[in-house]
Amino acid sequence: MNDARLKPEALAAIMQSHQNWSVSKDGNAITRNFRFADFREAFAFMSECALAAERLDHHPEWLNVYNRVGVSLTTHSSGGISARDIEMAAIMDRAAGRFGI
Amino acid sequence: MNDARLKPEALAAIMQSHQNWSVSKDGNAITRNFRFADFREAFAFMSECALAAERLDHHPEWLNVYNRVGVSLTTHSSGGISARDIEMAAIMDRAAGRFGI
Amino acid sequence: MNDARLKPEALAAIMQSHQNWSVSKDGNAITRNFRFADFREAFAFMSECALAAERLDHHPEWLNVYNRVGVSLTTHSSGGISARDIEMAAIMDRAAGRFGI
Amino acid sequence: MNDARLKPEALAAIMQSHQNWSVSKDGNAITRNFRFADFREAFAFMSECALAAERLDHHPEWLNVYNRVGVSLTTHSSGGISARDIEMAAIMDRAAGRFGI
Repeated sequence: MNDARLKPEALAAIMQSHQNWSVSKDGNAITRNFRFADFREAFAFMSECALAAERLDHHPEWLNVYNRVGVSLTTHSSGGISARDIEMAAIMDRAAGRFGI
Repeated sequence: MNDARLKPEALAAIMQSHQNWSVSKDGNAITRNFRFADFREAFAFMSECALAAERLDHHPEWLNVYNRVGVSLTTHSSGGISARDIEMAAIMDRAAGRFGI
Repeated sequence: MNDARLKPEALAAIMQSHQNWSVSKDGNAITRNFRFADFREAFAFMSECALAAERLDHHPEWLNVYNRVGVSLTTHSSGGISARDIEMAAIMDRAAGRFGI
Repeated sequence: MNDARLKPEALAAIMQSHQNWSVSKDGNAITRNFRFADFREAFAFMSECALAAERLDHHPEWLNVYNRVGVSLTTHSSGGISARDIEMAAIMDRAAGRFGI
């Protein structure tokens, strides 16, 4: 998987098809806020994502408060957003989709 | 939640609407085998169920091998199947349903 | 478990024996930052705490970045710090202690 | 990591230093039964092991009943016990050790 920082044009094109995600102000991360029915669903979602993160060796920055999970994805080695973040975002979208989100 | 062992007629009626579950040969437990796409999905399912089990203080007997999870539910205090097992089965069905099962 | 906001003197006395925790500036939460060896340990810690939180129906606000977990505990119903937060802090300390922290 | 089936002499030597584990009757798996204080501890242990299993792509067969976890490790591709099983056993021993086991 390519760690290289995505070029602005490539990133802009990709974000068109990931409208639930936003680029952070500094341009170095993509973020999404998830809202589940309750803590149980939120943490089940986190458990699935944690297994994926450990397998891919690419871990999110995430904040959980009861039924909400705020996620920020960045690639530290390249100091910005890479294809690895896009892959992880897709996995998280799929995991959240199980809960009708 | 009522721990009392369900009477045979009541249990038979309930099992009509839980056709994915079977009564064990000795009549003391209900069982279901789940098959997921992979380990990640299987363990995400288990994580959600574990949180529910801990909240309800009613825990499954379960065997996991990669993408498969075999579950047996019984109520030890009554030596058989109670409404608590039916409740837990419904929670597990809903959790598995997220994975298209 | 008592949800009532702890009086300042009681809280001050309790914090003496919970020196790893700090009272937030607004006085409404207690916080601690945990640093584990890696993500696996951090998330194993979170899994144990999640089960406890679900059982007690008292959930943390927490931020995880790889091996770090920042926790904030407050009791929303009382708008401040209650005995429930102290109980949860003790559970989290014990869970982290397993990792030599 | 080598998937090759361990030769009987090598396995016998290794088992000397893994006395908590037993070779199954058919010689194709190593097993250990863990007993924790309660379900919460048992499932926290399982969560740590699940993350390791997913990372190593080497998954246990395990049975959980409340505070007990029975584990069987084998390497399907070689039809027996390989160095990967020994590695996973060591990870599980370390994870259980956090709970004083």
